[in-house]
Amino acid sequence: MKKLYVVGLGPGEPAGMTYRARAALDKADVLCGYTVYTDLVAPLYPGKEVLTTPMRREIDRCRMALERAAGGDTVAMVCSGDAGVYGMACLIYQLAGEFPPVDIEIVPGVTAAVSGAAVLGAPLSHDFCVISLSDLLTPWETIEKRLRAAGEADFCIALYNPASRKRADYLRRACAILLESRSPETVCGWVRSIGRDGQTAKLLTLAQLQDETVDMFTTVFIGSSQTRALDGKMVTPRGYEAKL
Amino acid sequence: MKKLYVVGLGPGEPAGMTYRARAALDKADVLCGYTVYTDLVAPLYPGKEVLTTPMRREIDRCRMALERAAGGDTVAMVCSGDAGVYGMACLIYQLAGEFPPVDIEIVPGVTAAVSGAAVLGAPLSHDFCVISLSDLLTPWETIEKRLRAAGEADFCIALYNPASRKRADYLRRACAILLESRSPETVCGWVRSIGRDGQTAKLLTLAQLQDETVDMFTTVFIGSSQTRALDGKMVTPRGYEAKL
Repeated sequence: MKKLYVVGLGPGEPAGMTYRARAALDKADVLCGYTVYTDLVAPLYPGKEVLTTPMRREIDRCRMALERAAGGDTVAMVCSGDAGVYGMACLIYQLAGEFPPVDIEIVPGVTAAVSGAAVLGAPLSHDFCVISLSDLLTPWETIEKRLRAAGEADFCIALYNPASRKRADYLRRACAILLESRSPETVCGWVRSIGRDGQTAKLLTLAQLQDETVDMFTTVFIGSSQTRALDGKMVTPRGYEAKL
Repeated sequence: MKKLYVVGLGPGEPAGMTYRARAALDKADVLCGYTVYTDLVAPLYPGKEVLTTPMRREIDRCRMALERAAGGDTVAMVCSGDAGVYGMACLIYQLAGEFPPVDIEIVPGVTAAVSGAAVLGAPLSHDFCVISLSDLLTPWETIEKRLRAAGEADFCIALYNPASRKRADYLRRACAILLESRSPETVCGWVRSIGRDGQTAKLLTLAQLQDETVDMFTTVFIGSSQTRALDGKMVTPRGYEAKL
């Protein structure tokens, strides 16, 4: 059966990949993906064919991968973090019907909510939400509704795509919504370039986060009412402390 | 500096582990954890010391790991899935102050929401919540509030700990809350024993899920209003289809 792997590479460094992800790349005749992600793995496979499309050409990229797989090549479509979480897995399934049958295997990876959390400490140790602030594909009203719900129900929150050149004030707007239900002292944090050169991280309050400048390479974490800063780490207790 | 790794093992099979996780286990003098998890990795390290405590003895387990690390051993505390998401990372930070300084490094892993999603297709390709139905450490009222908020704001949802012997009807109760705001036809799924022998998975509607019997080894997925069953897979579109 013709085979297409959709592979989550994890946070960036090759060591953040799973053995299963690496095995899928080994088996592939063709590596396919957004240039920034194929650049992470192409050096591991000198001479292997690499197909790329620029940013925002996700539909072309997925069709290209499906076409090559349907033609008989073993293809690995690579995604940053996980293959599913804001990754290409859904689009591959949506487009698969346009091509002859291909065996699609999703190889999961460590998504930025989880890898970024590990840098900050343990912010997502209790119930949490993952929300993208990008309104390219989602109406801002939907994002706002989810932020409000997550804030009111006291979830820990990981924000993906917290900013871009065109969306410079989106994090500020998100914080304003969360401040409707959360204390300005809520413990927050961000991590930039997780698992890559120049990784940086910072703990701050929700009030400070509102005035913070972050970029598209940053994942932002908002604590629940229970989250604490402990010795420079962001920690959300699970409730064991009642037994201490 | 004395070193304690808190390591997420991923879903279960050794191939689900990251290279970074494996490197931490390699370096460790002592492997520490709940027996079910140390059993997954101990065979990779014949002769390496293994410290375990039974289920629910998490506080003892973490103190044991910190004590050995403070004493000079390199210790790897292993967790199923990720080290942070309902893992031991938070408790390690909470208890660290009782011991001489130890360098704590959290090594993230693929959590069940992500690995289970890969089995079902791409259910978490848009904003999602992770909620545990266990009320051992969290009041049921808090869980209910989060379920209601997640339902109303149309998040995809991954449910951890959906049942146990004492909590046989919790999934039913959770579904009843979600049915207040979601259609009974909402696409849902579950995966049991992710990445282990006997892995099984099923797609079903929210109405069917309410009457489903699941166990503590199962992760349950509830789609958003946008989630579809496509050729036997659970897929939540990100919105690209508007461009197709």
